[in-house]
Amino acid sequence: MSTSRTPIPFSRESLEQVLKRRFFFAPAFEIYGGVSGLYDYGPPGCALQANIMDTWRKHFILEEDMLEVDCTMLTPHEVLKTSGHVDKFADWMCRDLKTGEIFRADHLVEEVLEARLKGDKAARGVAINEGEEEDADKKKRKKKVKEIKSIKLDDEVVKEYENVLAQIDGYSGSQLGELMTKYKINNPATDGPLELPIEFNLMFETAIGPSGQLKGFLRPETAQGQFLNFSKLLDCNNEKMPFASASIGKSFRNEISPRAGLLRVREFLMAEIEHYVDPDNKSHSRFDEIKDLKLKFLPKGVQESGSNELTEKSLGEAVSSGMVDNETLGYFLARIYSFLIKIGVDPSRLRFRQHMSNEMAHYAADCWDAELHTSYGWIECVGCADRSAYDLSVHSARTNEKLVVRQPLPEPVLVEKYEVNIAKKKFGPKFRKDAGTVENWLLARTQCELEDLCKELNENNKIVFKIDSIPNSIELDTEFVKIEKVKRTEHIREFTPNVIEPSFGIGRILYSIFEHQFWARPEDKDRTVLSLPPLVAPTKVLLVPLSSNAELQPIVKKISAFLRKEQVPFKVDDSSASIGKRYARNDELGTPFGITIDFDSVKDESVTLRDRDSTKQVRGSLEDIVEAIKDIAYNNVSWTDGTSKLTPFDSQSEA
Amino acid sequence: MSTSRTPIPFSRESLEQVLKRRFFFAPAFEIYGGVSGLYDYGPPGCALQANIMDTWRKHFILEEDMLEVDCTMLTPHEVLKTSGHVDKFADWMCRDLKTGEIFRADHLVEEVLEARLKGDKAARGVAINEGEEEDADKKKRKKKVKEIKSIKLDDEVVKEYENVLAQIDGYSGSQLGELMTKYKINNPATDGPLELPIEFNLMFETAIGPSGQLKGFLRPETAQGQFLNFSKLLDCNNEKMPFASASIGKSFRNEISPRAGLLRVREFLMAEIEHYVDPDNKSHSRFDEIKDLKLKFLPKGVQESGSNELTEKSLGEAVSSGMVDNETLGYFLARIYSFLIKIGVDPSRLRFRQHMSNEMAHYAADCWDAELHTSYGWIECVGCADRSAYDLSVHSARTNEKLVVRQPLPEPVLVEKYEVNIAKKKFGPKFRKDAGTVENWLLARTQCELEDLCKELNENNKIVFKIDSIPNSIELDTEFVKIEKVKRTEHIREFTPNVIEPSFGIGRILYSIFEHQFWARPEDKDRTVLSLPPLVAPTKVLLVPLSSNAELQPIVKKISAFLRKEQVPFKVDDSSASIGKRYARNDELGTPFGITIDFDSVKDESVTLRDRDSTKQVRGSLEDIVEAIKDIAYNNVSWTDGTSKLTPFDSQSEA
Repeated sequence: MSTSRTPIPFSRESLEQVLKRRFFFAPAFEIYGGVSGLYDYGPPGCALQANIMDTWRKHFILEEDMLEVDCTMLTPHEVLKTSGHVDKFADWMCRDLKTGEIFRADHLVEEVLEARLKGDKAARGVAINEGEEEDADKKKRKKKVKEIKSIKLDDEVVKEYENVLAQIDGYSGSQLGELMTKYKINNPATDGPLELPIEFNLMFETAIGPSGQLKGFLRPETAQGQFLNFSKLLDCNNEKMPFASASIGKSFRNEISPRAGLLRVREFLMAEIEHYVDPDNKSHSRFDEIKDLKLKFLPKGVQESGSNELTEKSLGEAVSSGMVDNETLGYFLARIYSFLIKIGVDPSRLRFRQHMSNEMAHYAADCWDAELHTSYGWIECVGCADRSAYDLSVHSARTNEKLVVRQPLPEPVLVEKYEVNIAKKKFGPKFRKDAGTVENWLLARTQCELEDLCKELNENNKIVFKIDSIPNSIELDTEFVKIEKVKRTEHIREFTPNVIEPSFGIGRILYSIFEHQFWARPEDKDRTVLSLPPLVAPTKVLLVPLSSNAELQPIVKKISAFLRKEQVPFKVDDSSASIGKRYARNDELGTPFGITIDFDSVKDESVTLRDRDSTKQVRGSLEDIVEAIKDIAYNNVSWTDGTSKLTPFDSQSEA
Repeated sequence: MSTSRTPIPFSRESLEQVLKRRFFFAPAFEIYGGVSGLYDYGPPGCALQANIMDTWRKHFILEEDMLEVDCTMLTPHEVLKTSGHVDKFADWMCRDLKTGEIFRADHLVEEVLEARLKGDKAARGVAINEGEEEDADKKKRKKKVKEIKSIKLDDEVVKEYENVLAQIDGYSGSQLGELMTKYKINNPATDGPLELPIEFNLMFETAIGPSGQLKGFLRPETAQGQFLNFSKLLDCNNEKMPFASASIGKSFRNEISPRAGLLRVREFLMAEIEHYVDPDNKSHSRFDEIKDLKLKFLPKGVQESGSNELTEKSLGEAVSSGMVDNETLGYFLARIYSFLIKIGVDPSRLRFRQHMSNEMAHYAADCWDAELHTSYGWIECVGCADRSAYDLSVHSARTNEKLVVRQPLPEPVLVEKYEVNIAKKKFGPKFRKDAGTVENWLLARTQCELEDLCKELNENNKIVFKIDSIPNSIELDTEFVKIEKVKRTEHIREFTPNVIEPSFGIGRILYSIFEHQFWARPEDKDRTVLSLPPLVAPTKVLLVPLSSNAELQPIVKKISAFLRKEQVPFKVDDSSASIGKRYARNDELGTPFGITIDFDSVKDESVTLRDRDSTKQVRGSLEDIVEAIKDIAYNNVSWTDGTSKLTPFDSQSEA
């Protein structure tokens, strides 16, 4: 929203009232008291979401010829154990055994220390500037610390607190526990003691099947289903590389204490792309098309030096300077940018923040988040990570199914490599049911591992190793296995592709767009408008008969039929409210166009078209008006160009 | 599929191979061994599903101006307790304690008795006609009874077995247990004993939040979320009646032992409509438009007399004769029919079966299933029930929130009715935090209940009652409450609407369409075709350059760009396979059109268009060809009409 349009300051309360009143969304099970972190989308929210997803599908899947899949949400334990989610997808929580309250440990420490720093400033008589707080997590929760006590701290303590806060995202559970003990952090409401932080896995658990023995989870992301189908998808793509799969669907996270509306919820819509590339060649065939686009970046080095200053750079520069790891990653940053702008994000409130070294998974080559600025601070809305070969490798190792690409080499090459020879006949009697597992384990070793094993075998005449699923150590001598370096002419190159993963949190994007596009008409702060782009607006047209006079009924019916045939989503408002009231209602719903039907319409089928944002009106034949609507809504034409052939119309006051 | 097109008999095995090879769908987590009842949709299945849902949205939501909502899948225990699912949404299972196997009791009894009847026929030398088995549930499972033993039964036993089988859907758990004891039904594989049937609730359970104290389930249907939002939706509709809400989303049922591919799964896509009507007026404003449409009905009376004979009737007759309960229900049967035909269901394999009295919920006024015939028998794919006021009433009673419609009466009416007067000031001190609950309870009583309470108050000078959420009985004398019959002039009519619910199981419909549209070319049983309607086919066009000659590249690129601009989903197949092989591959994928690019295309930009079903070809300019494709795919134009302006083209053999 340009500031010229909104001299009235943004009010989150006013936006929340509109979203609730028009049922964009609402707490789920509200008549039962609600469940925190669960929201239902009402008709306008649902239509907006559907239009955004339709745009996403066209922008990514159709435009880039991606392979869409729809995988199950129920996921067995074993899959998420392999992916690392069972062990690592957790937050730290601490309980107050007396009141039963549960706190997320990092959030609690952060909030208490911040409150103490504020109290210190108060005691020192220093003004507190709320606007300073730029960090999302700080403001997006309702405060647990209700009261700021004006108590002066030692200068040294202030320094310590500030230092802790700067690193708050990096502490382990035991470190958080130490901080709580050291700084005497208790339940802020009662000052009662808290248990030390314990790990809480964020996945919803359930049992699959009647025996209760197959433990499962609701997926925390859509990615794993895509990875598991890799070989089938490669086959669908006629074995051609690079290619991408994509998936749109719900995922689940059992947040410890969700707040902040759509920004932190327990069930949410995601759209994820897994783009598979050759690890030796991460160039992108369409990089040239976007290389001159300039984006605002916040690279890791800047953050690590304690600054938030943005760098504006073209993607060409960003990649060639090495700031963005590779062309494919850069290409997706550009595509994410153009998608977000298309659906209504304010470009001045969008930045790309790079993950710092201690934030990123050990296997990731690079990771950037598209962050949107809201009244809660900067919010991570899209992640774009180069996950290297991690996911395919771990699932392959666990299942002994190859998840690789095989490509004919342009010319055969002579390679020296270690090879394993197994005396299969002897394996059966020795290992019985485990024979296959041991064989597969040996065959799955990397060249480095084989080099070590070869050495061990030469030195000791045996190798000794351990396989997770077999209790005892395994010992093999040269009767059972030979490992040798051999020379071979190879015609095929086999490799595990790397994965570049753009991952969209749709609810967060939706909410940010609400904030970016909400404003109040300068003449009246209660006349609020949601300037959703026509492309994604829930309804394109409000049909308004000037009066409820029966004479207008047939033409309303005729125009409705025409709009339906032309597939322009519309609503009729033939209520007895004034024209102005009816338009105001639909300004709140983000409906970009109004068609007014009056007594002249009965005579010559001409109608008036109203623009939501400017309230300008033009007059013309129904056909011309609908053509203008379609051009503006679907073909990216401006109001001025789209209505250039129509007659300006002096509107009566809307007050 | 017309029989003239398929002299080669349908082969389920051949269809399954194609669906697997082309990755329409596949067992989820297949590289981990799979989990029964869970399937992933690959690219063509996912696109087909998306196109079907897009058609559904246009056919129902847009055409009928319904209010779409998107509610959460996670649902707290209390909601599903009220709806009846916690107590009644269950099957009976029995366990073999020795082997750990678990059987669904009704399926097991049915299968064992059927096997014994077959054995009896064998012993009597009577031929068994597999084709006789018409009932879906009989064939859709892989058999547990592997072997038919040729043993003659007493004539009386045969009668008894047949009698039991006729009523198999109606037995309670204890009755199934009695049958198992009486007929000595054991584990068919080992003949080991089984435990008596115990109830197994089919909902997946989980815990919401970190305390583990809020029990929740994955929703078994999308309906409850719609009911709970009733008041908000009525408000969105400007308080106008009748209206409908609709929802598309995943639901979950923890089937005891799912088999039969997509027909019985644990996670599935549903599309449900809740249409709210005035219980005193279930007419429909558009009934006239469909009243002459004839459908094939299987009414309850016919079934109860032991017959499966279909009656063909117009909907006008069906409703006026009382066979279908009301116009709104009839209107939806017609809309369901036209939707199913549009997306590829064979009308000769579609019937509407009415629920028998013992099948229907006690509150339901009428219920019809759209059943599709497949190689597994007749499959319930769409349910269409008049659920009366049940759902809104139970949620309202439980939450004390009114879920009603209030309409101004055309003329005021004088009514006599019981009214409660509460001495609010005295409630606070007496009940403290429960004051509101007690007040709401009193205000929510029906007229009948108030009549009883009034009598009690008059006779005893007090009333005594119990509210679920309050431990002790509540006693109120006339100091606290007055209940009197009063005369009032009313201007408003208040009522709980009835709900008519069309409910679609998308996976089952999808699978039935595969069976209805799968055939083999008469000249070669391995050249199979999926004749999906162009409207829903995953890809509309296969682009085939005649050779991989570099000369053709620029025109392929140009045509690709044009198709993308025209938003026609297409794929390029520039592999080195022969034209015939490439077309055969896409016949299996259900792609309706092929565009062949040859050396003439380079000269004059003309191309050849191929029809999947007839393999006929026509030639014309790219623009004309794309116009024909769009007309046929989206505007319901036939091949003959759509290509009338194009030049017939003698195709080279496709062999």
